[in-house]
Amino acid sequence: MKVLAIAGSLREKSYNRGLVRAARALAPSGMEIIEADISDIPLYNGDDDGDDRPAPVTALAEQVKAADAFLFATPEYNYSIPGVLKNAIDWLSRVPGGIFAGKAAAIMGASMGGMGSSRSQYHLRQVLVFLDVHPLNKPEVFVSAAHEKCDDNGDLQDEATKEMIGKQLAALQAWADTLQ
Amino acid sequence: MKVLAIAGSLREKSYNRGLVRAARALAPSGMEIIEADISDIPLYNGDDDGDDRPAPVTALAEQVKAADAFLFATPEYNYSIPGVLKNAIDWLSRVPGGIFAGKAAAIMGASMGGMGSSRSQYHLRQVLVFLDVHPLNKPEVFVSAAHEKCDDNGDLQDEATKEMIGKQLAALQAWADTLQ
Amino acid sequence: MKVLAIAGSLREKSYNRGLVRAARALAPSGMEIIEADISDIPLYNGDDDGDDRPAPVTALAEQVKAADAFLFATPEYNYSIPGVLKNAIDWLSRVPGGIFAGKAAAIMGASMGGMGSSRSQYHLRQVLVFLDVHPLNKPEVFVSAAHEKCDDNGDLQDEATKEMIGKQLAALQAWADTLQ
Amino acid sequence: MKVLAIAGSLREKSYNRGLVRAARALAPSGMEIIEADISDIPLYNGDDDGDDRPAPVTALAEQVKAADAFLFATPEYNYSIPGVLKNAIDWLSRVPGGIFAGKAAAIMGASMGGMGSSRSQYHLRQVLVFLDVHPLNKPEVFVSAAHEKCDDNGDLQDEATKEMIGKQLAALQAWADTLQ
Repeated sequence: MKVLAIAGSLREKSYNRGLVRAARALAPSGMEIIEADISDIPLYNGDDDGDDRPAPVTALAEQVKAADAFLFATPEYNYSIPGVLKNAIDWLSRVPGGIFAGKAAAIMGASMGGMGSSRSQYHLRQVLVFLDVHPLNKPEVFVSAAHEKCDDNGDLQDEATKEMIGKQLAALQAWADTLQ
Repeated sequence: MKVLAIAGSLREKSYNRGLVRAARALAPSGMEIIEADISDIPLYNGDDDGDDRPAPVTALAEQVKAADAFLFATPEYNYSIPGVLKNAIDWLSRVPGGIFAGKAAAIMGASMGGMGSSRSQYHLRQVLVFLDVHPLNKPEVFVSAAHEKCDDNGDLQDEATKEMIGKQLAALQAWADTLQ
Repeated sequence: MKVLAIAGSLREKSYNRGLVRAARALAPSGMEIIEADISDIPLYNGDDDGDDRPAPVTALAEQVKAADAFLFATPEYNYSIPGVLKNAIDWLSRVPGGIFAGKAAAIMGASMGGMGSSRSQYHLRQVLVFLDVHPLNKPEVFVSAAHEKCDDNGDLQDEATKEMIGKQLAALQAWADTLQ
Repeated sequence: MKVLAIAGSLREKSYNRGLVRAARALAPSGMEIIEADISDIPLYNGDDDGDDRPAPVTALAEQVKAADAFLFATPEYNYSIPGVLKNAIDWLSRVPGGIFAGKAAAIMGASMGGMGSSRSQYHLRQVLVFLDVHPLNKPEVFVSAAHEKCDDNGDLQDEATKEMIGKQLAALQAWADTLQ
């Protein structure tokens, strides 16, 4: 099972990218997690949208097509989805063929405040209705006070959070199997 | 009263940019509407965020500071705020001094479908809680079937929509006066 | 396949109860739709919650347990889920055993205004995350201007809406089969 | 300034009713907080809605009319507004004259989990758009782990939370003054 992980932050030492690295290390047997790179996706402009999309969009769309499931690791900016993550989704949603449709997803996220990116995650769930992606309901992974749980490189050090991520990935594997 | 209008689309003939042009033409006496340009705002990256922000961000932040109120014209992409609009907000929210705080706003939006960008508008309202902006409650302006109400240049032709925009701008003027 | 339909209105000639009647008539072969009665569910009070729940709650909980899937027909009151529907869910969620968990659902709704109960439906989707119910993503059924599509008894007369309901029920049948 | 406080729980020792008692004790000079009683409001039924509304609805509506501002103390049930609170609002919204319109509100809430009723509070904010109530943006009051901050009677014992409530009430007073 190929899982495409999309972190919603471009910062090198991002806690959410750290969650994706943790997830890669914790992936259960039979699951391969690939990290998407959204740093070169340009701002969406309908005038540039057509058969000839920007190369980074096309490359990422191929990864989406090849994926069996998705893992979103989303920060919360201004009580919603980061623009950079939403912008990548906006481009990908324009690629013909419903490349997300019918697939499973898990959502996690880290924030420095106390809500663990939950406000962002519920907005993302509404986006997934449109994309026809089926997110896991449980367990939800809300990582609050991320600066206390990750080191200076953004690497997750908190054992309880690692355990929760492991449980979410196992649930994702079972959920994606059900949907196939 | 200076109102900064931010349209959430980069497309030249965007219906939402057309709404902003219509609003400029319909502005009541005493209100000047300036259209923001978000097309050069780069993708937000925390590593580039600091005292030395990108020039287009700084320029836009000056317009935000100078504004008495805001007018958002937001498309709906994938049942939420366009990434390009959210990305601009993400940058602006990092500028010190609470440059949005305490000011009034009005929200409008156009979509080709039947919901008139409402799903995007309610997500934007949650973002405004964080920014401490006070959006008008009524009238809400939802422009459905925008392709039937605008011409090929994105210019609004529909009289009923123009009337609604006029009412919203009058309400914004009164609301901003109350808040000052 | 047993589908429990819960309409979020107590009004006798409710458009949403009319949608449930239409769904019953349109149910595909192999699907039986039973209409829940929430009119006798008392206001939720934690002091009355325990082993000895009110009889209408216990009876409805038995129907939930016996159901393979759910059909929600929700009005929109004040831009959200009707209190009467939410109150029934609040009681049911307290019954031990996770009686909703893992099951499929479809959501439809009618309103007299132009949004077809969509604001209510997206709030309901967030509730279903907690209940661990898996709602269909598509097709969504938003019935706007319900008073023009239903007769004075609340019975649905609009052929296009009937067709959409038929498609949603077929999708629900396939979705519930996938989840079992 | 008369503030009508509406707690979204009927339980006698409810933490949210405890928040209202704390708010009454902490009210700044010039603010009187009256606690609404929603326990006798019947389930909303459009067939019973008309000139002759149930007496508890009419009595509560008089309190709403007389209030200068509102204080909502909302639990979170199933990731949204409690049915009992929403049901009271549904009835009140039917009383002619826009009895809520244009007034200020503050929102607080307590939950045993870690999110402090935030998911419920954001749904309530959307409801307030329809009612044309203007909620405070800041400070938000999210009381997590309420069972550790309140005693067995539901009375708030936590000093940091009391301080936050005091700040919110002062902000509400200023906000309501601005709106008048």
